[in-house]
Amino acid sequence: MILMTTVTANLTPVELRRKIRSGEFSLPTSGLCPGYTQANLVILPKSLAYDFLLFTQRNPRPCPVLEVSDAGSRSLNVFAKDVDLANDFPKYRIYKNGEVTDEVTSVQNYWQEDFVSFLIGCSFSFESELISAGIEVRNITENVNVPMFNTNIPLQSAGIFHGNMVVSMRPIPEAQVPTAVQVTASMPKVHGAPIQIGDPQAIGISDVNQPDYGDSVTIKPGEVPVFWPCGVTPQNVIMQTKPPLVITHAPGHMLVTDVINTTLKY
Amino acid sequence: MILMTTVTANLTPVELRRKIRSGEFSLPTSGLCPGYTQANLVILPKSLAYDFLLFTQRNPRPCPVLEVSDAGSRSLNVFAKDVDLANDFPKYRIYKNGEVTDEVTSVQNYWQEDFVSFLIGCSFSFESELISAGIEVRNITENVNVPMFNTNIPLQSAGIFHGNMVVSMRPIPEAQVPTAVQVTASMPKVHGAPIQIGDPQAIGISDVNQPDYGDSVTIKPGEVPVFWPCGVTPQNVIMQTKPPLVITHAPGHMLVTDVINTTLKY
Repeated sequence: MILMTTVTANLTPVELRRKIRSGEFSLPTSGLCPGYTQANLVILPKSLAYDFLLFTQRNPRPCPVLEVSDAGSRSLNVFAKDVDLANDFPKYRIYKNGEVTDEVTSVQNYWQEDFVSFLIGCSFSFESELISAGIEVRNITENVNVPMFNTNIPLQSAGIFHGNMVVSMRPIPEAQVPTAVQVTASMPKVHGAPIQIGDPQAIGISDVNQPDYGDSVTIKPGEVPVFWPCGVTPQNVIMQTKPPLVITHAPGHMLVTDVINTTLKY
Repeated sequence: MILMTTVTANLTPVELRRKIRSGEFSLPTSGLCPGYTQANLVILPKSLAYDFLLFTQRNPRPCPVLEVSDAGSRSLNVFAKDVDLANDFPKYRIYKNGEVTDEVTSVQNYWQEDFVSFLIGCSFSFESELISAGIEVRNITENVNVPMFNTNIPLQSAGIFHGNMVVSMRPIPEAQVPTAVQVTASMPKVHGAPIQIGDPQAIGISDVNQPDYGDSVTIKPGEVPVFWPCGVTPQNVIMQTKPPLVITHAPGHMLVTDVINTTLKY
């Protein structure tokens, strides 16, 4: 899928969120509002919130929690003002009993008073840092969604939640791999350092050109596929755990927050 | 209080825990097993666990969660093997309706099947890193418990939990303050960088020689009092929130874990 971004050029995060809220923009958010933190979403009823929060605590590499809403609230306290969690992601997925039953641009008709929303850090947030360090980010250059893969990396379970890690992949020239590790390692709230470098089969990926989510990107000679923990992991876990109703963002379709990436650095 | 440590010289963490478990040692743990992570404790019934876990997520500076037990379990999966959470802290406090009703060396007679235990990072963990960097840690030199203070720094509330931050204080020679910040900032899981440097009144501390918890230490001419977020914070929150029953460690009396500090570094 080729993404068109002329409608989004030079927008501030709140301006972009308003365009998304009004239905004017519903594409992936990679490369938009460079320098601002982007976030994955999991919405579930409060009865499942403890198990899920504990799952994120036990698996901070794929599930770094940025903020948790109060039950029933569609707004945030820290990561964005002027935000509507039911409308400000370009696309949402409805999961019923572990299966995607709908993909929509608004979830206000699904909203329940006991919904708790989890914002989870996203590797799109460190892409602008990689570019600043002189590293090309192929999915941005080729204007497609980042490739994401299911892996065989098991996660620590918590209550009903269990499953394997999902990763995102970016091809990096061999000589730039140390810099890519260094830049991303300093940002653990948006997944931090890579989890695997150069050997997709070692983590259960049979074909690096056939992603399970997102789009394929070109891997040029002399480039190494580098894999980072991915905030789509909860969706894989939900498919395995099969809770009655969960809402997530659609892969690649993030919330763009008001928080500057570098404030999340250590 | 002067601490005697001859019984604990050169013990490994598991050897120390066994001595504590048997009742042979019940003093503060500052300076013991240098290089190993120490942990604060909060035990509460599962009905309060979501609110408390969310409170820690919203306030990671004073409440960096290292591990959360499964409900009812007295053991851990990550931070220690051969551990009994009901006996391996040198001293515990029983809080009923926000008041300390008992201080004991074992809580096995209080144990309930719905208890969830939270291990929270402790600044004792970075003291050996400060010493390695050439910085004297006064509470270790003077063989007393670290001084801790209530502050006016408000925390983000979560469910029933609300209150102000507690801090620990170490006097640092002016010229070494930047190094002390740098060393501790790299260890956010054990409280990270200081929250205040040099101005106790700015955070509501009227007399830096009269700690609310622990012991007073000497501040020499040319030294600056430096304040770090402290894992006793939940006890202050519990006193303000008044839940029916909560168990904590006694301030300064930590769990010494099997995990080496430097593995928690970013």
